[in-house]
Amino acid sequence: MKIQNGQRLVFIGDSVTDMGRTRNGDSPSEGLFEPLGKGYPHIVSGLLNAVYPERRIRITNVGNSGNNVRDLKARWQRDVIALAPDWLSILIGINDVWRQFDSPQLTEQTVSPAEYESTLRELVVTTRPRLSGGLVLMTPFFIEPNPSDAMRKRMDEYGAICAGIARETGVLFVDLQAAFNQVLKHCHSGYITWDRVHPNVYGATVIAREFLRAVEFDYNHGL
Amino acid sequence: MKIQNGQRLVFIGDSVTDMGRTRNGDSPSEGLFEPLGKGYPHIVSGLLNAVYPERRIRITNVGNSGNNVRDLKARWQRDVIALAPDWLSILIGINDVWRQFDSPQLTEQTVSPAEYESTLRELVVTTRPRLSGGLVLMTPFFIEPNPSDAMRKRMDEYGAICAGIARETGVLFVDLQAAFNQVLKHCHSGYITWDRVHPNVYGATVIAREFLRAVEFDYNHGL
Amino acid sequence: MKIQNGQRLVFIGDSVTDMGRTRNGDSPSEGLFEPLGKGYPHIVSGLLNAVYPERRIRITNVGNSGNNVRDLKARWQRDVIALAPDWLSILIGINDVWRQFDSPQLTEQTVSPAEYESTLRELVVTTRPRLSGGLVLMTPFFIEPNPSDAMRKRMDEYGAICAGIARETGVLFVDLQAAFNQVLKHCHSGYITWDRVHPNVYGATVIAREFLRAVEFDYNHGL
Amino acid sequence: MKIQNGQRLVFIGDSVTDMGRTRNGDSPSEGLFEPLGKGYPHIVSGLLNAVYPERRIRITNVGNSGNNVRDLKARWQRDVIALAPDWLSILIGINDVWRQFDSPQLTEQTVSPAEYESTLRELVVTTRPRLSGGLVLMTPFFIEPNPSDAMRKRMDEYGAICAGIARETGVLFVDLQAAFNQVLKHCHSGYITWDRVHPNVYGATVIAREFLRAVEFDYNHGL
Amino acid sequence: MKIQNGQRLVFIGDSVTDMGRTRNGDSPSEGLFEPLGKGYPHIVSGLLNAVYPERRIRITNVGNSGNNVRDLKARWQRDVIALAPDWLSILIGINDVWRQFDSPQLTEQTVSPAEYESTLRELVVTTRPRLSGGLVLMTPFFIEPNPSDAMRKRMDEYGAICAGIARETGVLFVDLQAAFNQVLKHCHSGYITWDRVHPNVYGATVIAREFLRAVEFDYNHGL
Amino acid sequence: MKIQNGQRLVFIGDSVTDMGRTRNGDSPSEGLFEPLGKGYPHIVSGLLNAVYPERRIRITNVGNSGNNVRDLKARWQRDVIALAPDWLSILIGINDVWRQFDSPQLTEQTVSPAEYESTLRELVVTTRPRLSGGLVLMTPFFIEPNPSDAMRKRMDEYGAICAGIARETGVLFVDLQAAFNQVLKHCHSGYITWDRVHPNVYGATVIAREFLRAVEFDYNHGL
Amino acid sequence: MKIQNGQRLVFIGDSVTDMGRTRNGDSPSEGLFEPLGKGYPHIVSGLLNAVYPERRIRITNVGNSGNNVRDLKARWQRDVIALAPDWLSILIGINDVWRQFDSPQLTEQTVSPAEYESTLRELVVTTRPRLSGGLVLMTPFFIEPNPSDAMRKRMDEYGAICAGIARETGVLFVDLQAAFNQVLKHCHSGYITWDRVHPNVYGATVIAREFLRAVEFDYNHGL
Amino acid sequence: MKIQNGQRLVFIGDSVTDMGRTRNGDSPSEGLFEPLGKGYPHIVSGLLNAVYPERRIRITNVGNSGNNVRDLKARWQRDVIALAPDWLSILIGINDVWRQFDSPQLTEQTVSPAEYESTLRELVVTTRPRLSGGLVLMTPFFIEPNPSDAMRKRMDEYGAICAGIARETGVLFVDLQAAFNQVLKHCHSGYITWDRVHPNVYGATVIAREFLRAVEFDYNHGL
Repeated sequence: MKIQNGQRLVFIGDSVTDMGRTRNGDSPSEGLFEPLGKGYPHIVSGLLNAVYPERRIRITNVGNSGNNVRDLKARWQRDVIALAPDWLSILIGINDVWRQFDSPQLTEQTVSPAEYESTLRELVVTTRPRLSGGLVLMTPFFIEPNPSDAMRKRMDEYGAICAGIARETGVLFVDLQAAFNQVLKHCHSGYITWDRVHPNVYGATVIAREFLRAVEFDYNHGL
Repeated sequence: MKIQNGQRLVFIGDSVTDMGRTRNGDSPSEGLFEPLGKGYPHIVSGLLNAVYPERRIRITNVGNSGNNVRDLKARWQRDVIALAPDWLSILIGINDVWRQFDSPQLTEQTVSPAEYESTLRELVVTTRPRLSGGLVLMTPFFIEPNPSDAMRKRMDEYGAICAGIARETGVLFVDLQAAFNQVLKHCHSGYITWDRVHPNVYGATVIAREFLRAVEFDYNHGL
Repeated sequence: MKIQNGQRLVFIGDSVTDMGRTRNGDSPSEGLFEPLGKGYPHIVSGLLNAVYPERRIRITNVGNSGNNVRDLKARWQRDVIALAPDWLSILIGINDVWRQFDSPQLTEQTVSPAEYESTLRELVVTTRPRLSGGLVLMTPFFIEPNPSDAMRKRMDEYGAICAGIARETGVLFVDLQAAFNQVLKHCHSGYITWDRVHPNVYGATVIAREFLRAVEFDYNHGL
Repeated sequence: MKIQNGQRLVFIGDSVTDMGRTRNGDSPSEGLFEPLGKGYPHIVSGLLNAVYPERRIRITNVGNSGNNVRDLKARWQRDVIALAPDWLSILIGINDVWRQFDSPQLTEQTVSPAEYESTLRELVVTTRPRLSGGLVLMTPFFIEPNPSDAMRKRMDEYGAICAGIARETGVLFVDLQAAFNQVLKHCHSGYITWDRVHPNVYGATVIAREFLRAVEFDYNHGL
Repeated sequence: MKIQNGQRLVFIGDSVTDMGRTRNGDSPSEGLFEPLGKGYPHIVSGLLNAVYPERRIRITNVGNSGNNVRDLKARWQRDVIALAPDWLSILIGINDVWRQFDSPQLTEQTVSPAEYESTLRELVVTTRPRLSGGLVLMTPFFIEPNPSDAMRKRMDEYGAICAGIARETGVLFVDLQAAFNQVLKHCHSGYITWDRVHPNVYGATVIAREFLRAVEFDYNHGL
Repeated sequence: MKIQNGQRLVFIGDSVTDMGRTRNGDSPSEGLFEPLGKGYPHIVSGLLNAVYPERRIRITNVGNSGNNVRDLKARWQRDVIALAPDWLSILIGINDVWRQFDSPQLTEQTVSPAEYESTLRELVVTTRPRLSGGLVLMTPFFIEPNPSDAMRKRMDEYGAICAGIARETGVLFVDLQAAFNQVLKHCHSGYITWDRVHPNVYGATVIAREFLRAVEFDYNHGL
Repeated sequence: MKIQNGQRLVFIGDSVTDMGRTRNGDSPSEGLFEPLGKGYPHIVSGLLNAVYPERRIRITNVGNSGNNVRDLKARWQRDVIALAPDWLSILIGINDVWRQFDSPQLTEQTVSPAEYESTLRELVVTTRPRLSGGLVLMTPFFIEPNPSDAMRKRMDEYGAICAGIARETGVLFVDLQAAFNQVLKHCHSGYITWDRVHPNVYGATVIAREFLRAVEFDYNHGL
Repeated sequence: MKIQNGQRLVFIGDSVTDMGRTRNGDSPSEGLFEPLGKGYPHIVSGLLNAVYPERRIRITNVGNSGNNVRDLKARWQRDVIALAPDWLSILIGINDVWRQFDSPQLTEQTVSPAEYESTLRELVVTTRPRLSGGLVLMTPFFIEPNPSDAMRKRMDEYGAICAGIARETGVLFVDLQAAFNQVLKHCHSGYITWDRVHPNVYGATVIAREFLRAVEFDYNHGL
């Protein structure tokens, strides 16, 4: 498994990452009393610590509900750089797209593909060299199997931008849309999410498993 | 994996199983809105559905905080038999022992090894034949590495009773105390539980992994 | 407008009708303090009273969240017959279908097309003669434009059953799926509902307008 | 209909406009989750979006409970000018008058006709040229049919000032007092308001219909 | 003062009497911790005890919000007879009339003059002989100075019925409408009530003073 | 009655005056919705407005729980001078004394007779000339009939200081201790207060009557 | 110390004993999570367990706020006899007296000396033989040093009745009034109670020390 | 007893001292309404005041949950020096150690023995001369009888540092670990604490008794 003893892993993103993490002012969420929310960072923390307790990995959640990539940039210094992570996981873009469909009139709340791409690339390029471990870039997703659905199609564009940036920069890449597409062969979206965006614990475990695969987690370690 | 398409899996136990499951009167907890609490049944539901979504396993939590084996017997008809499970998982005994140490004066709240054994055996023996899948019997545990600690020692007696019943009846057996002993080689109990009884998400995932091993869950299925 | 002076109009249905109506035990919701919830019955009450204040129509909401047609039948005597309405509006079927997709394992919570049809027909046939005004039967809907989406397709089957019953019995018929399909030409479903089932006030007004068209409401009356 | 594609419509006023709009600090209320309160702006938003979904009109509520025209002036820059609306609707004057009757001793809380007139005229005159759409000026009202009631009489003076300003400036004018007088021919004030000032949903729909008439809304559009 | 040492005084009525009295199940409100609500019974209790502390009068409030005379009759045995008062004060009729105006469709909630008269007469006639002190009958009122207002006019009819019954039976009579008419010469209704029915503390004191005048209370006693 | 049309009356004091007055930041309590708390200012407002509605007296409560005379001085500019009252009522001293008995160790919370006298005199002397109406100085009190009780004795010293200042400066004087002594001839202190300091509504009315006597209120005015 | 290993000690009484004990329906308060309230039973439990942990004494609180001796009798079977205590402590009488002073009109809430004496004697006489340990009878008290205060005088009568019963029956006797009189030589009642009835933790410790003295507790045991 | 009339005693520490003390901003907790929390300072206050009421000792709690010795230093000026105590009690070190075991990754939250020693010595050395009474230094503890438990062993190191500093500086020393070890001979840790750190009232009384022994408190004083 790629994450080494005592390394720090930071998850940044939007509500899918946040999922009600315990807040204390602007502090990142970590440490005692399961403050990571109920999303995939919580599931990841359970699996990493149950399977590799000897590694004592420090896991920090700085996901903020409602964020788009522009919001991430605005708080990058405080919420990423200042924390000096060894590993960083980024999952962003859902709100960049969603607002184009649920609030098309509030144009200041949407982020165009061009802005998404340039901002995300800048964050990845400037941050990757600071990480002693690595960076995992996960695609935004829309839990909808129909690829011609307007919002799914748009989300796929943003996912492709992620893939491109990962290719360019050599960071680890996770295609969450593909993972959900696979699950949707077996169930309707309503089985894992009430709004096609926020996964329940089934969906959170799908994300966790994909993240952990990227860092070469071995579930059977120690058995 | 032993649990087949459309089978129903019921978890019964005490607060370690309950962990704040959503209640609606006396109804068992299952279905929409993640009602299984935040303990190992929740983690198991995430892993089973993320890895085997095609099996659509019905997972039901009927753990009740504070219960001992005598309480289980009193509600067995309503909370186990009437639900007609295919699979049943039992994790009981912690309160049977704990009350002997934290409330020794309230003797009516403790359960002796003899009563524990006969009651548990009766429940297992009469129920196993009704299950089209199987029965998983998990030992109670005390997350304390020192085997000469008085409560740990006592808990080990009850764990041994479980092991004996499993041997006799051929049901699946999970030694949770052994699993936690293994984790405690790498960290202090305070890392996974604040009171040596209620595991945090790290400990819940330890239990989930042990349960899933017993039913031959394959984490890498579908990858 | 078909609803005459002093007539009583009862809305029955599921959460789309309920929408947080004010409850007082099992009493129907009506009268002072805007108890009709925030869904289409509320919008209808505003339009009927603003445009036809002289008619003093009594509007009663007995929608219950989570109900399917089987639940309606179980409370029909208390919530419809005993109220002796002049006009009755029925909007049911969404949960009959939805549970097949979000909780396929909880089979006792789903209603097959056959049961839906026979139950709904019985309710319509036995109740229509008691109504001095009329009965409005509205189709269940799924606010999804893709007709090959599995749940939309299933919902269309139930909508067709409604249409058939309306044809047979001559009650007033409202095709809400068609109305929403029309709106979805201009916006994504996220613009009018967060889960493709519960409309916001825009969607509630769509339903209200369709209902009111069926009873030949004249918006410009009195202007 | 006069309001064009993508235009922004701002409602300013007192509690009749506010009606519990969702607040986030000093931000205007708009966008997701029905934040417009439960008054006429909410009803207007439902009708505009149900009937003209293709226009994607941006609707913003900046009504503040308890405000008089002096309060409006104090926040005009932040709550009107800075939002750059295309359309502006003003409904103010009720508190200017009401305090003269319920709190005559607190003289600093009342606004004389002279101050009302000069302040309102200034706001209208300086703002109208900035609006690409138009300005709708609605009279304050007292839902009391007796024209010799002292407060109704006083309110009528303020309504006449509105009418005069509308005439002078050519903005769209809505006589809400006249609309309510018409309704009061058919019911007692208690039917639509508990205090003769705050309309229930029936009264809110009366206002919405009057506002929409002023902007030439066609209810039957798209049917 | 007519109320003698140690006598019990019971106030029955609707919300004007209730005014949030402290409830303990169905028990009448009396005794420690100022349980009489914030209406006129509270003010009366203050004046009687401050001015005549030596009389130790027992004051009990059994007003229930929303009650009409029919509701009073239904609970008369429990809330009047069983308490064995020496003095009884009745203030009823407002809801009997009000519902005719704010909820004309809910006809079962209104009480006609004929029913009001016969029911009230029966209560007065059968109860008066049981009272060792006396009975005070107070008129319902509508705090509106215009005698041709529809609801005021109707309320006056019910007030006249009270007056008639008082005349017939010789019980003490208080014309609250007349008292409020007097106050309304000096202020608008909004000064003493927000809805023309529920008096604030100014109006509650008006009622208290009228009640106390009927029992020949001497404010200057003991000074 | 000495308080004239449109005059402003301000009550300042401690918790006996405050009694839960409605606060809005640091604003004084006055105006709509009965914000004066439930103590004597509330009772006074009821009597003044019920008996002299034509005078439209403005009543303001600036009592603060826990205050002593030193606290009053600290906020005198904001809470008295800036309000420009015509009439001022002062009731202070209870906490100055009480803390000497319930918290003798917290010496910084007590106020000696010398400090009480000089501070109170300064407030009275500098403020009286600014009042177009008058100043009412009321003694602090301890609702205990035994004059040799240590705290009652101490309170009497502070009361005597009040009397002296009133004599010197010619302001209106109210001896509340004497008034309560009179009531205590007829009942135990527990009948009007649970702690011998905070009066219930009976005691609040005792204070109100004494205050009103000082300003020559005529209860029978207008009858 | 008289209370032996594993004996059960039950405290019965009124609010001074209850002091917010944790309730679970009608169950007595005992066991985990400090359910004994914050009064003297709580302090006694701390001292007994800190000083004699080896005795594992079972301590149960069945005090009920507001109770008088008549209430105790009504629940004696359930709350004393059914619990089979070894030791019983009774502290009752305060409400029997207090209601005579704070609610003299509610005569059904007071208990005369004769009834107090006969009821208490009956409870003591019939229960003492059932106790393997002993019975501690504590006097009711009024934390007022003035023996001629009316309520103190009355309380002393009830205390004398206790003393008489203790003498007659040979049960252990604790004169709490005397203990408080001693403390009141050094401080005002306000230092240990806000209403002369409910002691703060200082007063609760006074009671605890008196109770413990009666059972020959040795504070220095084990040091 | 060493604490003299009118002296001030300040308790500083972590959650074991804090135990929910009532806070008012940053103010220390003291005075009326039992603000000292429910831990040992509360028990000490009860015993000191019940046994020595004549001394009127001022007791102040400035314990803060979660604090380590570094946190104490940061607030020493405000919470110790500025209060000018006569007596100071320090109980610190539990969190310094605990975080090393429950959160080993959050290294900035742990305090090494060297830092603990130098910081604590500095606080003791600089403060002792300012105290007219004395300083009581109590060891941190872990309520675990097994001396080879890793956290107990570590805690013993910190306890030894305390003992060393007490020896060097001559301040009063209390070995709480030894006191708890004594109690643990008679019961399991679960009898007095749910997490081996936070004592229940039994454990709080153990600490209180040890503290009081250090200041030569005589429990039998005044009996």
